[in-house]
Amino acid sequence: MAKAAIVGGSGFTGGELARILCRHPKISLSTITSRQHPGVKVSKVHPYLQGFVDIRFDEKLNGRMDYDIVFVATPYGASMDVIPDILKNGIKVVDLSGDYRLKDPNIYRKWYGIDHKDPKNLLTSTYGIPELFKNDIVESQLVANPGCYPTCAVLALAPLVAEGLIESRVIVDAKSGTSGAGMEPTKLTHHPNCGANVIPYKVGSHRHTPEIQMALDMMSGGASEVVFTPHLVPIVRGILCTSYVHLAKSASHDDLYSVYEKYYADKRFVRVDAVPSIPSVVGSNYCEIGYEFAGNGNVVVMSTVDNLVKGGAGQAVQNANLMLGLEESTGLDFPGLGV
Amino acid sequence: MAKAAIVGGSGFTGGELARILCRHPKISLSTITSRQHPGVKVSKVHPYLQGFVDIRFDEKLNGRMDYDIVFVATPYGASMDVIPDILKNGIKVVDLSGDYRLKDPNIYRKWYGIDHKDPKNLLTSTYGIPELFKNDIVESQLVANPGCYPTCAVLALAPLVAEGLIESRVIVDAKSGTSGAGMEPTKLTHHPNCGANVIPYKVGSHRHTPEIQMALDMMSGGASEVVFTPHLVPIVRGILCTSYVHLAKSASHDDLYSVYEKYYADKRFVRVDAVPSIPSVVGSNYCEIGYEFAGNGNVVVMSTVDNLVKGGAGQAVQNANLMLGLEESTGLDFPGLGV
Amino acid sequence: MAKAAIVGGSGFTGGELARILCRHPKISLSTITSRQHPGVKVSKVHPYLQGFVDIRFDEKLNGRMDYDIVFVATPYGASMDVIPDILKNGIKVVDLSGDYRLKDPNIYRKWYGIDHKDPKNLLTSTYGIPELFKNDIVESQLVANPGCYPTCAVLALAPLVAEGLIESRVIVDAKSGTSGAGMEPTKLTHHPNCGANVIPYKVGSHRHTPEIQMALDMMSGGASEVVFTPHLVPIVRGILCTSYVHLAKSASHDDLYSVYEKYYADKRFVRVDAVPSIPSVVGSNYCEIGYEFAGNGNVVVMSTVDNLVKGGAGQAVQNANLMLGLEESTGLDFPGLGV
Amino acid sequence: MAKAAIVGGSGFTGGELARILCRHPKISLSTITSRQHPGVKVSKVHPYLQGFVDIRFDEKLNGRMDYDIVFVATPYGASMDVIPDILKNGIKVVDLSGDYRLKDPNIYRKWYGIDHKDPKNLLTSTYGIPELFKNDIVESQLVANPGCYPTCAVLALAPLVAEGLIESRVIVDAKSGTSGAGMEPTKLTHHPNCGANVIPYKVGSHRHTPEIQMALDMMSGGASEVVFTPHLVPIVRGILCTSYVHLAKSASHDDLYSVYEKYYADKRFVRVDAVPSIPSVVGSNYCEIGYEFAGNGNVVVMSTVDNLVKGGAGQAVQNANLMLGLEESTGLDFPGLGV
Repeated sequence: MAKAAIVGGSGFTGGELARILCRHPKISLSTITSRQHPGVKVSKVHPYLQGFVDIRFDEKLNGRMDYDIVFVATPYGASMDVIPDILKNGIKVVDLSGDYRLKDPNIYRKWYGIDHKDPKNLLTSTYGIPELFKNDIVESQLVANPGCYPTCAVLALAPLVAEGLIESRVIVDAKSGTSGAGMEPTKLTHHPNCGANVIPYKVGSHRHTPEIQMALDMMSGGASEVVFTPHLVPIVRGILCTSYVHLAKSASHDDLYSVYEKYYADKRFVRVDAVPSIPSVVGSNYCEIGYEFAGNGNVVVMSTVDNLVKGGAGQAVQNANLMLGLEESTGLDFPGLGV
Repeated sequence: MAKAAIVGGSGFTGGELARILCRHPKISLSTITSRQHPGVKVSKVHPYLQGFVDIRFDEKLNGRMDYDIVFVATPYGASMDVIPDILKNGIKVVDLSGDYRLKDPNIYRKWYGIDHKDPKNLLTSTYGIPELFKNDIVESQLVANPGCYPTCAVLALAPLVAEGLIESRVIVDAKSGTSGAGMEPTKLTHHPNCGANVIPYKVGSHRHTPEIQMALDMMSGGASEVVFTPHLVPIVRGILCTSYVHLAKSASHDDLYSVYEKYYADKRFVRVDAVPSIPSVVGSNYCEIGYEFAGNGNVVVMSTVDNLVKGGAGQAVQNANLMLGLEESTGLDFPGLGV
Repeated sequence: MAKAAIVGGSGFTGGELARILCRHPKISLSTITSRQHPGVKVSKVHPYLQGFVDIRFDEKLNGRMDYDIVFVATPYGASMDVIPDILKNGIKVVDLSGDYRLKDPNIYRKWYGIDHKDPKNLLTSTYGIPELFKNDIVESQLVANPGCYPTCAVLALAPLVAEGLIESRVIVDAKSGTSGAGMEPTKLTHHPNCGANVIPYKVGSHRHTPEIQMALDMMSGGASEVVFTPHLVPIVRGILCTSYVHLAKSASHDDLYSVYEKYYADKRFVRVDAVPSIPSVVGSNYCEIGYEFAGNGNVVVMSTVDNLVKGGAGQAVQNANLMLGLEESTGLDFPGLGV
Repeated sequence: MAKAAIVGGSGFTGGELARILCRHPKISLSTITSRQHPGVKVSKVHPYLQGFVDIRFDEKLNGRMDYDIVFVATPYGASMDVIPDILKNGIKVVDLSGDYRLKDPNIYRKWYGIDHKDPKNLLTSTYGIPELFKNDIVESQLVANPGCYPTCAVLALAPLVAEGLIESRVIVDAKSGTSGAGMEPTKLTHHPNCGANVIPYKVGSHRHTPEIQMALDMMSGGASEVVFTPHLVPIVRGILCTSYVHLAKSASHDDLYSVYEKYYADKRFVRVDAVPSIPSVVGSNYCEIGYEFAGNGNVVVMSTVDNLVKGGAGQAVQNANLMLGLEESTGLDFPGLGV
């Protein structure tokens, strides 16, 4: 059994990591830290874990630093404070904050509003979408777990980008459940405001924009520009991305199907033969992808993930599996709720 | 035109009062106060009022105190600070906080946790359910506008209580939209917590319990005990009360119908010939009531109101109409959205 | 008082028309027809109208044909069966089906799958967005009331199109409440399927696509191509359109604001100084519009309407007002619920 | 590996059974029947099972009848047609319809409106709440899987009933997600009707009433009368029961806690140390129970289950485990989603 810790385990992502790891056959969760709740039972903060996770929050990692893998689920800005030291101990790290996603510190500063404090490790970190960058992940000590929106959008667009099928601009119109907003009550997530509403937010300024751009550029050399608009919809879990591309060359529906099927041939967690559905992926590590033509070379690509699983904790465990030499789907091999 | 003011107009209730009053043919809204937003346009805080309410928030009422009616929509505790002075100026007041509802200061202290500072006016105030206490309201200078739950529950039960049909305990199981929780984000109303949930809260300890008890006692002399449980459901507007009574004497479905029909014979805003529905009353001042037998003298009474209208600002205007000598339904004569 | 009838009044649109007309100071609703419910009280089918609409459904219009205006709210295909005869009697008609929207019978056949049976009246009908085509509407005997999505999208884009600011493609990503699907239960609107979901539907094939295209072409001569994707979201009322355009020439945020403000200078029902919100317009005839830049000449325009009011019955009454020589906002002069 | 079949596998319950069984370490799902979809891939009807359940629907069970256990998930009325034959083959059966729950054929006729066709097996069947009737279940060939509401209500009340703590009437006010209504679209579950609504239905006449009554009588000899009202709330999964009892003898909060804790001491799937929450149990086989006093011997007991798991397919598997001699929680040992 690999020995794991979660740093910053009191939020939704931390709880979801614990929920997945408590059933993982090859990874044992030995420590969960929380600066807010040291000494408190984890199942007090995450009551659904009662009977599954019976340890208490520690204030920090144990001094022996004898973990095989550490998941860091602190807010951005805080991750880069704790990660260098963990790495120094030779421990593998999956970071779920945004701190190690954007490879260019200048772009990081521009979108996150603070200086990057750990450019050295940023340089060697790997952007962790296993379906796209598996070989790099396997060899990495530090993986930056992608954002929920980028996971959903990039998986939908990667095959087209890789084939050079996308011309100029890509529009990503995303609809997200409210759990993506985290555990802290805000005006945006106050039910009277959002419960019978669809709310576009951070239009033109969301941090996942440069992340999607970077991921697509990694495959295409920067051929297309990403326009990304997130919306809050009154559901709790799940993301639908509706992406709009114009084909660079003529292709039929079947042509595109071949592109997708080939690209994701042996990828367990991507379904391309799908009418993408949120309930179908909720509670699972799956991403569903479908597409339709809308006249004249316009293609509408739809994709869904559970923002807390494939868009968060599930993908983090998938990355950890690869980093630890385990089969990629270990502990993640369950279907979505469906209904 | 009667001249009106709203004290504490930046919350949901204040906005709803302004929304109703801006269309009222006999009451003119001249002042809205807000300690938080003095000088700010009302339509900045309540954007849906743009083009309807074009005044700015004042910090306090004007010095001339030349209003015919003042609606006080501050939190409990604050109302009793400002109301005595308004009354001294001979102005009529509808208080939408809880400060003047419970006639007994000891009960007020027990449930609200603070001492009542204005027992003199408390004594002469009227509990304002117009369908039940119209004659008193007409003659009052100070009306305590009922809580949303009590309005819905008491209207459903009053005819049975008045007829002496209820034996011992009454169970009121209420389901409310989240707008009843007000404008401030809290953990309870955080969408990830409440958006796919039904949350019982303040079980056995909600302040509306003694209020329902008091209102029923006013009609029956205290013959029955009220058990009240509120629940938050993932809708924004509307309350359904499901009330359970055991009949003190035998009665048929038709007998009860006669009781209800007679009791509410000329009451514009109560529909007894109804399958109570929330959408049917949303946006309106109506209360819908229906009932079914559930074996052996058990009757299940169902009732619905829009918590912000009949359960709040609409009933306040209905009370004001009566206090000002206007026809009760003036400015309130519109149907619910239905869908 | 103008005398009005509704043909096909048992659906959501018919109920909404009755809800608005029952409070209209200059139009009197004298007949509502329903082939399904002849002889039944209207308030039996639309219980929220009890006390407001106390007539019964007729099977057909009265033989005297003495109406000033008839609203036709039958499904597409059925409207063109009944409208020619009404017109022959010199009566003005607002058609809420899709039958008279697409001016080209070939395009109608392509998207609706049936032949147009009344091309003569189709030719002289007017597409009824009052903010854009007021002069034509005033003079028309037959107005085709626009679809809910086109109303929301076209109002958002018209000023940019009219100024020649839009280059090539326009993406309209729309999110709609379920009331747009009408009164008949379907798999799509079955709550277990749609209640915790966002469902793209009729992607690339929705009938409102050519309607939006036609409306924009009327202003621009066909300079841009419309890609339209509707989604069902788990709310009941309201539409948000997120539209993506690339500017044909450089313009600042302020430049665009001037364009919008000038275009809608004296239009009562359009708010351009808005963060568009669904609750803000629900229950009202308003359209709210806002926009943001998203890098490099990309503009994201957001717009909201209540699909049953400005996107349906409200706009129909607005059109009727103009056709009858009344002030455009008569009977529509109320704000949205806001919360 | 025990060999299992599902009869009637195209509905929500059938899908949920397959979702659980496909991960079960000791039961192998070899046949799923559907009269509607013979020959169709199961994952075509339940797309979330793609990659987990790769068989096709059969029209009927295989002729060899070599199953160890058969789950019957047909509608009531149809179950008693197929079950006698399966039993004759010596196969164990868990019936998820209502056909074998009410032990008295007269009560069955009264509430289900049809005659019972298999009174012989009805007589020997066991009502399957494992926490209450484990010993009987272990020895049964036919287990009637309880309804979703009875599971939630009976688990909440059983300890009090067993202790003789309940006086006379019990009120069960239940709020259910819409998945309980099954896969067929109806007016009740049409989103525009139920999406912003709380709908009491079958008040005084729901079939789960006599089932709850029977289960409580099995423990108490019929000391109390059950009044049961179900409501539809706009969530998809989950039930909250709010039950109202009056104590037959004085007891403190701690006294009741002892009663609950003792009663469920070694029951894996009941949490009594809980603030019952729907998200906490969704996706899991858990039942959470909590209670509060509401003055004068009134106790409000709250309980939650996932209607499709502990209230359906999960409990069916729990029963099957016991019937097959497996550890009760085999294949069910996962926490709820929590968020």
